[in-house]
Amino acid sequence: MHIGVLGGGQLSRMMALAGYPLGLQFTVLDPSPAVCASQVAEHVQADYTDQAALDDLAQRCDVITWDFENVPAESVAYLEAKCPVYPAREALALGQDRWHEKSLFRELNIATPKFAMVDTRPDLLAALDDIGLPAVLKTRRMGYDGKGQVVLRTQEDLEPAWQQLGGQALILEQFVSFDFECSVIGVRSRKGEVAFYPIARNRHHRGVLSISAVPARLPEALSQQAQAWLQELLERFDYVGVLTLELFVRGSELLVNEMAPRVHNSGHWSQNGAVTSQFENHLRAVAGLPLGSCDARGASIMLNWIGEMPKVQAFMSIPGLHWHDYGKSARPGRKVGHANLVADDLAQLRERAQALQPLVTAEQWLHIQECLGAEV
Amino acid sequence: MHIGVLGGGQLSRMMALAGYPLGLQFTVLDPSPAVCASQVAEHVQADYTDQAALDDLAQRCDVITWDFENVPAESVAYLEAKCPVYPAREALALGQDRWHEKSLFRELNIATPKFAMVDTRPDLLAALDDIGLPAVLKTRRMGYDGKGQVVLRTQEDLEPAWQQLGGQALILEQFVSFDFECSVIGVRSRKGEVAFYPIARNRHHRGVLSISAVPARLPEALSQQAQAWLQELLERFDYVGVLTLELFVRGSELLVNEMAPRVHNSGHWSQNGAVTSQFENHLRAVAGLPLGSCDARGASIMLNWIGEMPKVQAFMSIPGLHWHDYGKSARPGRKVGHANLVADDLAQLRERAQALQPLVTAEQWLHIQECLGAEV
Repeated sequence: MHIGVLGGGQLSRMMALAGYPLGLQFTVLDPSPAVCASQVAEHVQADYTDQAALDDLAQRCDVITWDFENVPAESVAYLEAKCPVYPAREALALGQDRWHEKSLFRELNIATPKFAMVDTRPDLLAALDDIGLPAVLKTRRMGYDGKGQVVLRTQEDLEPAWQQLGGQALILEQFVSFDFECSVIGVRSRKGEVAFYPIARNRHHRGVLSISAVPARLPEALSQQAQAWLQELLERFDYVGVLTLELFVRGSELLVNEMAPRVHNSGHWSQNGAVTSQFENHLRAVAGLPLGSCDARGASIMLNWIGEMPKVQAFMSIPGLHWHDYGKSARPGRKVGHANLVADDLAQLRERAQALQPLVTAEQWLHIQECLGAEV
Repeated sequence: MHIGVLGGGQLSRMMALAGYPLGLQFTVLDPSPAVCASQVAEHVQADYTDQAALDDLAQRCDVITWDFENVPAESVAYLEAKCPVYPAREALALGQDRWHEKSLFRELNIATPKFAMVDTRPDLLAALDDIGLPAVLKTRRMGYDGKGQVVLRTQEDLEPAWQQLGGQALILEQFVSFDFECSVIGVRSRKGEVAFYPIARNRHHRGVLSISAVPARLPEALSQQAQAWLQELLERFDYVGVLTLELFVRGSELLVNEMAPRVHNSGHWSQNGAVTSQFENHLRAVAGLPLGSCDARGASIMLNWIGEMPKVQAFMSIPGLHWHDYGKSARPGRKVGHANLVADDLAQLRERAQALQPLVTAEQWLHIQECLGAEV
C-alpha cells in the first residue's frame, strides 16, 4: 500500500520509518526543497495548492494523510474526490481556527478556558471586560509552538499587543495559571475501534514542548475525563488516525487548551516506551489495519532537542536511552531531534535520569525534575 | 555519518530503518537491479568487484559494513585502503570457507562436530572411516540456508552425493542428532565493549530458519559456555559489530555449527523484544557509538514468512504482535518478512501464541510449540 503524506517534516519522516515494516511505501508532498522525510521517502516538491501535484499524489497513493495542521483544508477536499484522505477534514479545518475549535469544545461540554472572538478594538475591550486579566490574545489561524500570541497581564500590555496582532482574526483567551500541562493521545481505526495512550505530562519552554513524561501522575478520574472528551471528538469527526488534546491541570480541574489532528510531539515517548508507537498506530488506522496496543512498557521521558543536536556519545551511554535524530541541519528554535529515556518503572526512570543532570542545562534539569516528581 | 552497506537485502533494509534515528544515512551496493533496501536507502547497482563502484562508495561513506557473508573478501580488502570497513575482514574470509572456520573453532577449543577436508573421492572414503555415518557432505564455500549440502545416511547415499557435489572443495561433517538448535548473538564496539543478547532457541525447516524464541530455556551453564566462545571469537578478530554463532544442543552438550559475521535472522526478535535491536547495536558499533543494552524486554517468538506474506489482518489483531514486511515480491523459498510476538514473560507469551494456531500450518504450529515448550 502506498501512503501519501502532506508535509515532509520529522513527523512524516518518523511515520515512514514506522511504516516500512508494515509493508507500506511513502510519498510526501512538501513545498520546501529540503525536507527531512525525503531521506526515507519519495518527495514531491510542490505547493499544497498545486492541483497537478495533488492529482499526481492521488494517482500514485492508496491513502493520503498529513503531518501538520496547517495543510489547506481546500486541498484535502480536492484530494478526497480522488483518494481516501484521513484523519478527517472537518477536524483539520476546525483545528485551523481557534475560535471554531473552542466553540466545538463548548458545544460538547468539553471544559476549556474562557474565550471570545476579537475582530476589532472594541471587541477586544468587551472581551477583556468579560474574561479579565491576565489573558492571551492569539491569532485565530496559523499559530503553533507559541507563535502568533501575546500575553496581556496589565492594561499597559493592550496597546502593543494590538499593534502586533490587530487587523487579523483574533481570539482572546483567559490566561490559565495551571499547575502543569498534559496531553492525551488517542487513535481510532477505520472500523471505529478506539485506543488511548496513557496521558503524558508535558513541560513547554518559550512556547515549545521541552519534555514529556509517562506516567503523568494525574489522578485517575482526570485521566478518564480527558479520554472521554477525546473519545467524543473522535466519534464526532468519524476520525481515522491519531488525535491529540493538550490540557491544563489546575488543582482537580482539567481544561482543554487545543487539539492537534495528527501525531504529536508529546507522543514521541511511545516509539520506545509503548507496545505500539503513535506513528505505527496512525498508519495502522489509515491503512485499515487493526490497532496495536497503546499500553506503556514501563515509564518514559522524552527530551526535545531544539536548535542543534547535543553530543550523542554521552547520552547514548545512558541505559535505556534511545536517540532520534531528524537528519536536519542546525537552526535556532528548530526541532532537530529528541531522546527517549525508558525504564521498567518510575523509580528506575528517576534513577536513570540522574545521568542526564551533567548533560543538560540547569533549566532542562529543573523541567526533568518537575516532570518526574520531586524524588528525582 | 554516512554508512555504506555491501548487500541490499532485508538485513540491509532493517539496518537502515534502525539507523536513521541515529542520524545515519545509507548507501547500499548490490548487483541486483531491485533490492528491498533501495526503498529506504540510496542504491548503487554494481558488482561487488567493480572497482569504480567501490571507489565511489568509499568516497561517499564514512564507514562501510555488509549484510551478507558472501561478499568477496578481496573487495573488502580493496575498500579498507580507502575507508574503515567493519566488522572484520578475517571473520568474513574465514566464514566463507567451512574448513577454515571449523579449523579455527578447533584451534580455540570451541566444540564443533567432527569434520574433514574432502577434495577427492579417496578423501571422502577416508573421512567417512573416521567420522562414520550419518554425516553431511557440504561445499566449503557459498553455502547458506541448507544449500550445497547432502546428508549421507547409508553407504548408498555416497555415490549420488558425490555426483552432485564432487569436483569442488568439500567438507564432510559428522551429522549431529541434536535435541534442538540455538544461537548466540554478541556485539563488540570499536572501544572493545562486548554485550550479548540472550540465547535464542531456533527451529529450521528444510534448511531455512522458521522460528526463534527467547528465552531459549537452556541451562545457564550452556548459555555461559556459548557466550564465552563468542567472546573469544570477537576478541580474536578484533571484531566491531554483531557476530552470531549457531549451535546444536545435545543433552548437556553444546556444539558450534557455524558463525555468521553479521546481523542474523535469529536476532530479529530483538527489534521488538530487546532494549536495543541487533540492527541498532551493529550500527552503534560500526559508527563508534556506545553499545545499547541487549537485555530482553519480556519473552519473544519470531516467525519467518517464506515465499509470500500471509494475510496481515488476522495476525495484527494479536496483542503484542509486530509485523516486518521486507517489501519484496513473492517467490517460493524467499524470505519475505517476519512477525515478532512479544509478551511480558514466557507464560503470557504461551497464552498469546494460542492465537497463532488457526493462522499457521500444522507444521508451523508444532514448531511454535517446540520452541515455547510443551505448555503451549
